[in-house]
Amino acid sequence: MTDPGKNFMQLAIGLAREGMNSATGGPFGCVIVKDTVVIASGKNAVTSTNDPTAHAEVVAIRQACRALGTYQLNGCELYTSCEPCPMCLGAIYWARPDKVYYAATRHDAADAGFDDHFIYEQLSATVENRAIPMLPLQRESGIILFEEWKLKSDKTSY
Amino acid sequence: MTDPGKNFMQLAIGLAREGMNSATGGPFGCVIVKDTVVIASGKNAVTSTNDPTAHAEVVAIRQACRALGTYQLNGCELYTSCEPCPMCLGAIYWARPDKVYYAATRHDAADAGFDDHFIYEQLSATVENRAIPMLPLQRESGIILFEEWKLKSDKTSY
Repeated sequence: MTDPGKNFMQLAIGLAREGMNSATGGPFGCVIVKDTVVIASGKNAVTSTNDPTAHAEVVAIRQACRALGTYQLNGCELYTSCEPCPMCLGAIYWARPDKVYYAATRHDAADAGFDDHFIYEQLSATVENRAIPMLPLQRESGIILFEEWKLKSDKTSY
Repeated sequence: MTDPGKNFMQLAIGLAREGMNSATGGPFGCVIVKDTVVIASGKNAVTSTNDPTAHAEVVAIRQACRALGTYQLNGCELYTSCEPCPMCLGAIYWARPDKVYYAATRHDAADAGFDDHFIYEQLSATVENRAIPMLPLQRESGIILFEEWKLKSDKTSY
């Protein structure tokens, strides 16, 4: 008897290794499964595509949504070779799969030279205390925009 | 005398309004500026493209990186109509622009029905206490992958 979850994780790790060895990007891979079928996969492609958002999870989430024709991944499980970074975790919350499995932890990633842990700390910091300066500007104009959105009758919420 | 920063923010807000009124997505816009020139722009396109990662900032960051042929945005400033959500903030940290200006706050966004504040809370929560279950699986395989990465001599770090 084999545990399908373990096989899915091995697929994610295989993609990570493939991506690393073919210089596609860093050692990260992800598969997304629905009803025990792999519907999407991704490997990190940051350096080969000059896209800092091309993390394995983001690549796989975008592909899964294209495959399903929706921006929501309910009923899906995500297997990733490493605990998602804050960007990917944010993407996961917006896509809303049912469950996430990860192999290595954020600390293992930090030990291998990836900034995840630092970014987690930065997200918890107040806006005034961030390493990248973040400054409020023309808040009133931004609020007016949201008022217009709230009044809009034919909008698609997400 | 006009303040160029204010003009860039008005551009971002104009894109947000345009995207909202053309049903491209939610009321969010972003421009990226280098040496006082707009090099990229984005509007939220989540619902029209079925891509939960197509937030204005992610769209603009990807476009700016394509334009510059790099995955790093040092020397750039990002103007966004709303304080970035955790996904976009993560993308910003990976892309590393010099500075971020935002109009509406995350609380203004929550008031208009956007989950950002909830996701910020989830990111601060321990892995065991997340609303989407996140489970460790085969950590050893993930660590082996990172060991291989560390030993790799011809890698491109990011």
